[in-house]
Amino acid sequence: MLAAVEALHKLAELGAYGLTFHDDDLIPPGSSNTERQRIIDEFTAALDETGMVVPMVTTNLFYDPVFKDGGFTSNDRSVRRYAMRKVMRNMDLAAELGAQIYVFWGGREGSEVDFGKDVRAALDRYREALDTLAEYSIDRDYGLRFAIEPKPNEPRGDILLPSIGHALAFINELEHADMVGINPEVGHEHMASLNYTHGIAQALWAGKLFHIDLNGQKGPRYDQDLVFGHGDLLQAFSTVDLLENGAPGGGPAYDADRHFDYKPLRTENMDGVWESARANMELYLILRDRARAFRADPEVQEALQAARVEELSSPTLSDGETYQELLADRTAFEDYDLEPARAQGYGFAHLQRLALEHLLGVR
Amino acid sequence: MLAAVEALHKLAELGAYGLTFHDDDLIPPGSSNTERQRIIDEFTAALDETGMVVPMVTTNLFYDPVFKDGGFTSNDRSVRRYAMRKVMRNMDLAAELGAQIYVFWGGREGSEVDFGKDVRAALDRYREALDTLAEYSIDRDYGLRFAIEPKPNEPRGDILLPSIGHALAFINELEHADMVGINPEVGHEHMASLNYTHGIAQALWAGKLFHIDLNGQKGPRYDQDLVFGHGDLLQAFSTVDLLENGAPGGGPAYDADRHFDYKPLRTENMDGVWESARANMELYLILRDRARAFRADPEVQEALQAARVEELSSPTLSDGETYQELLADRTAFEDYDLEPARAQGYGFAHLQRLALEHLLGVR
Amino acid sequence: MLAAVEALHKLAELGAYGLTFHDDDLIPPGSSNTERQRIIDEFTAALDETGMVVPMVTTNLFYDPVFKDGGFTSNDRSVRRYAMRKVMRNMDLAAELGAQIYVFWGGREGSEVDFGKDVRAALDRYREALDTLAEYSIDRDYGLRFAIEPKPNEPRGDILLPSIGHALAFINELEHADMVGINPEVGHEHMASLNYTHGIAQALWAGKLFHIDLNGQKGPRYDQDLVFGHGDLLQAFSTVDLLENGAPGGGPAYDADRHFDYKPLRTENMDGVWESARANMELYLILRDRARAFRADPEVQEALQAARVEELSSPTLSDGETYQELLADRTAFEDYDLEPARAQGYGFAHLQRLALEHLLGVR
Amino acid sequence: MLAAVEALHKLAELGAYGLTFHDDDLIPPGSSNTERQRIIDEFTAALDETGMVVPMVTTNLFYDPVFKDGGFTSNDRSVRRYAMRKVMRNMDLAAELGAQIYVFWGGREGSEVDFGKDVRAALDRYREALDTLAEYSIDRDYGLRFAIEPKPNEPRGDILLPSIGHALAFINELEHADMVGINPEVGHEHMASLNYTHGIAQALWAGKLFHIDLNGQKGPRYDQDLVFGHGDLLQAFSTVDLLENGAPGGGPAYDADRHFDYKPLRTENMDGVWESARANMELYLILRDRARAFRADPEVQEALQAARVEELSSPTLSDGETYQELLADRTAFEDYDLEPARAQGYGFAHLQRLALEHLLGVR
Repeated sequence: MLAAVEALHKLAELGAYGLTFHDDDLIPPGSSNTERQRIIDEFTAALDETGMVVPMVTTNLFYDPVFKDGGFTSNDRSVRRYAMRKVMRNMDLAAELGAQIYVFWGGREGSEVDFGKDVRAALDRYREALDTLAEYSIDRDYGLRFAIEPKPNEPRGDILLPSIGHALAFINELEHADMVGINPEVGHEHMASLNYTHGIAQALWAGKLFHIDLNGQKGPRYDQDLVFGHGDLLQAFSTVDLLENGAPGGGPAYDADRHFDYKPLRTENMDGVWESARANMELYLILRDRARAFRADPEVQEALQAARVEELSSPTLSDGETYQELLADRTAFEDYDLEPARAQGYGFAHLQRLALEHLLGVR
Repeated sequence: MLAAVEALHKLAELGAYGLTFHDDDLIPPGSSNTERQRIIDEFTAALDETGMVVPMVTTNLFYDPVFKDGGFTSNDRSVRRYAMRKVMRNMDLAAELGAQIYVFWGGREGSEVDFGKDVRAALDRYREALDTLAEYSIDRDYGLRFAIEPKPNEPRGDILLPSIGHALAFINELEHADMVGINPEVGHEHMASLNYTHGIAQALWAGKLFHIDLNGQKGPRYDQDLVFGHGDLLQAFSTVDLLENGAPGGGPAYDADRHFDYKPLRTENMDGVWESARANMELYLILRDRARAFRADPEVQEALQAARVEELSSPTLSDGETYQELLADRTAFEDYDLEPARAQGYGFAHLQRLALEHLLGVR
Repeated sequence: MLAAVEALHKLAELGAYGLTFHDDDLIPPGSSNTERQRIIDEFTAALDETGMVVPMVTTNLFYDPVFKDGGFTSNDRSVRRYAMRKVMRNMDLAAELGAQIYVFWGGREGSEVDFGKDVRAALDRYREALDTLAEYSIDRDYGLRFAIEPKPNEPRGDILLPSIGHALAFINELEHADMVGINPEVGHEHMASLNYTHGIAQALWAGKLFHIDLNGQKGPRYDQDLVFGHGDLLQAFSTVDLLENGAPGGGPAYDADRHFDYKPLRTENMDGVWESARANMELYLILRDRARAFRADPEVQEALQAARVEELSSPTLSDGETYQELLADRTAFEDYDLEPARAQGYGFAHLQRLALEHLLGVR
Repeated sequence: MLAAVEALHKLAELGAYGLTFHDDDLIPPGSSNTERQRIIDEFTAALDETGMVVPMVTTNLFYDPVFKDGGFTSNDRSVRRYAMRKVMRNMDLAAELGAQIYVFWGGREGSEVDFGKDVRAALDRYREALDTLAEYSIDRDYGLRFAIEPKPNEPRGDILLPSIGHALAFINELEHADMVGINPEVGHEHMASLNYTHGIAQALWAGKLFHIDLNGQKGPRYDQDLVFGHGDLLQAFSTVDLLENGAPGGGPAYDADRHFDYKPLRTENMDGVWESARANMELYLILRDRARAFRADPEVQEALQAARVEELSSPTLSDGETYQELLADRTAFEDYDLEPARAQGYGFAHLQRLALEHLLGVR
């Protein structure tokens, strides 16, 4: 507990505005109710003192061996019931601390042996759990929004809802789909060789980017949780550009927390821990400034025009045009002059060079 | 054209029941209308002669340089219009040949330079194209069902709708979502380190597994299109088990075509080409028989029981139970005995050993 | 300690012939000299009783935080000295137990931050350590052979000597290169998308395959340590074929231990642990039998001939031919008929189909 | 041919100092001897005019279907003879143009079917080819140095000599090992999830970094050949730092060509092609300047000291110390105080933050 209070003070000093945690991080499993309350009181006092907030809370459904085959989707029904109760209890705390977002990372919902898990039944149970917990939040007026955090593997051989896309598709099947979105982590998408910027763009398109976990990862390997930008720095730049500035031709940007979910290197002592906490925030702010300068640069605007990035916002059919009219338009097909369309350049190389120059601060 | 007719005869001889193609494979781009019709007539005659069918057709929107920045999502609007026309023309042919499935693989819908593609606008255009083409099929009574084929990358640096999940999530936003499903390819999911069996299970769960492309791939690298089973053989077994037998505790199996999308090795001559065509079908049939024997084995049934695979089909809440009742159930949490739940084994190792033994035919 | 004695008995019962361990697995770190001796005595007695042997021993230079920046290549010189002493102490025990192989897995020799590790200096230190320890073994007549186990990453972001190739290249620079070989693990090579069968073939070619760690891994992701064959089953077959039968046209096979380095799934209890121990050995024996049948099959021999696999053993130059004579041979170039060479098929598809049929036991 | 002459002029204008090529790029396969000579004469004249040089030449042993099972290691012996002759012919040209480096990229030396390739025999043939060709260069006083370019896969399922390490190990077995080194490409190592900076450091350590191919790649997927820095930008920085400045504590830097092997995006026209050629050189020069500033920064020097990077250059044994003396040194083991060694921080997080700040130009 001292740890959490101390962390609050230190992070406040570094300029953070909030802190998030798993239930078991704050309250040691097995604590008595009295002990539990004492910890919460101390922590709340420290929040008041520092002005820090707890915007998001989550449940640890992976560390305890009881969850070795998952929480909501364990083959053992009693484990599933226990998991739901553990979450409900911690949702009470989340509400008490004023959190708006409740994250679900189902790290142990999955399998190593395909024959041992009926994935359709597992998705049924996953849905049952989220539907029930959503009802709980609504009934108690907790005002929580749920955010599912996808991950392809580790600690399970294969995890259910392995990517942003799978989680978005799953959400569509929920009873209270409107209050459920996603919390994508940079590294988790990179573990599946997926483009994080594209992923969060699809989530924004679906109105489901409720929260983000920024960090770094060097492609498909173990989950590294590096400092943000210490993985794919160039893509970190396009991520920040999207989060801060929205689409090139307009379109809403991301308006919730910038949350870092990284793990200090094992080689470091406490100085190194704070150094890397600082590095996350510092890098984000540098990239934010560079992204603004990028957009403000007339040569960039010209290059975006040349690359016709905004032209993609114009519908392919003209206003009110039907497919019959498209069929009748000989300039679209029969008389379409393929050669210039084949020979033209899209100017992406120029755009990328300008982006690099802005990222590196040489313009 | 001779090639297609010849292929029909040879494949019929090998026991295939159908053939699928891209428009440009059958009809060379730039063919006159007369030439086009002649080819179609010859091909139709060959179909009649062999008794083969064309269950699925698709459009080549990737080879011609006009599509270098995509078809439906090119930044160039005139290219998008051309692409839609090319598809409509080929849908006419698909209907004429009696195809039921029309596949959309958007291999060049994507980007290498994040700053050059507004992904949200691209998804808007993708949706516009599919909505319009769905309307076209409906109006003309073509009875086609659309199947999107996801792929993470290659030929683009990053492709839109990179996985089964992303495609399912996208479909939910379509106007005629009911007539659109997916056509997942084994290798494409493995390029993103994803579990294919899990992926098609989620697609079945969503009622969206309209078609499949079976082949092989050795993890994240270039798109190999190996013979089915020549990649991850053990997972090929669980895939066939799911397709043929459905969930362990029941649940519908897959009822559409078993389609192979593989590419003969460049080292082979025509003998090798037919050898590998045969290898696909042979392996599928072996795995189908082994999967049936696996399910019929009483020791396997016992192991599935021991692993409580079917228990996952029982809802976590009892029939009619509310969350209030779950909260009140002290056996679920307060009095839950964690130790046996932690210590228990799930028996997946045993199940996997039995699966291996059946796969290898040693039981 | 009970654990090790118990494991000996259980493994003997399952048909294993030996057991290997890290120093800290057998003797808890911090044990007094008396305690240490007592453990060794008990363990030796159990070896006698069961008839089991300890063919290989290794040192744990990764768990203790003292090694967080490595053992032999820590930036801290005192850590490097401590690591060398820890190894020497354990080499005494290895010799006492009759081990012939001493494995070096440098899991924490590496870095996450490129700028923090001078890789050339690190390789100098690595060499210094192995040269010194080799001298120690020679002087004391321990008769140990060293085997380096490569791994690309995890727990370090990047590990030194990341693949079979890097380790082989490093060994060439050692003073006692003749007594140092490698101990390649299936999963470690697959984490780098490398072909394990090719890797051990290159090691055999160099005369350096001193030991092997058989297990399973599903491509580049966290280190899974699955049961052998539960990763890439088809490649497991070619691995066993090479180990047991050598090259198709002859050439020595592997003659040291078949060692399994796997980790039971966390979902299992002790029954599952033994089940998976059994699964490793069982699968190896099945594949061994299948590989023998594969080689003995006349159709396979014919297919190997057709694919001209043995022709590769014939030197490209004729016996005694000089490059001048090759230059003068117009049939080799000027008059070489390219067309048949281009059109020919190599028959690999047929070979692979036969391999699959043997693997699956359908021939 | 016009293309090559034009490229020379354009690249000279952009500031390049040389150009490299495959034989078939300059001289169309099937050219008559007269035609061949005419092309060479024109090209040589253009070199004189522009002052450009041809520092490196290589052979195309992959495009022509004759090489579908490899050049030096094809199962077909006549193909191997043809391949050797093709190389010899082009070595004559390389010498005539003054090239010092001759690159060997064996893209089709490999297999998709493990059972179809005897890897040990293949390595014998590979060695035979390089030994013979080395003799040819020596006898003719061509003064060429050979550089092997490793790659893990594509176009073959698995390529022989898949990484820097495998190539270095192979070179050790060659007759003229002293004249053979490597030509590692950034993207090829990243396709196997390997650290390029570590790889070239091991090559420098072995005295074998004869040439480099700089470009970009987004992890294990198809071979992208992106512009240098457009893959892993942070590692590109450590690569340039090593190439330009050598080890932190000294140690020789790389002194041969900075060569870019990238492929313009298919979306671009000729403007985009030159834009990306420029982007490679520009980025290299920016990183070079930033790396110099990084080393010159006193705070960086302090951080390198704090991280004890140079301490790794001090031998672990004291000058003249024997292992007996190390054994006798109780401070090294028996009395070694583990606690401070465990608790200390290595300061890598700080170093990485400083590197990022220099890379981004914010210091």
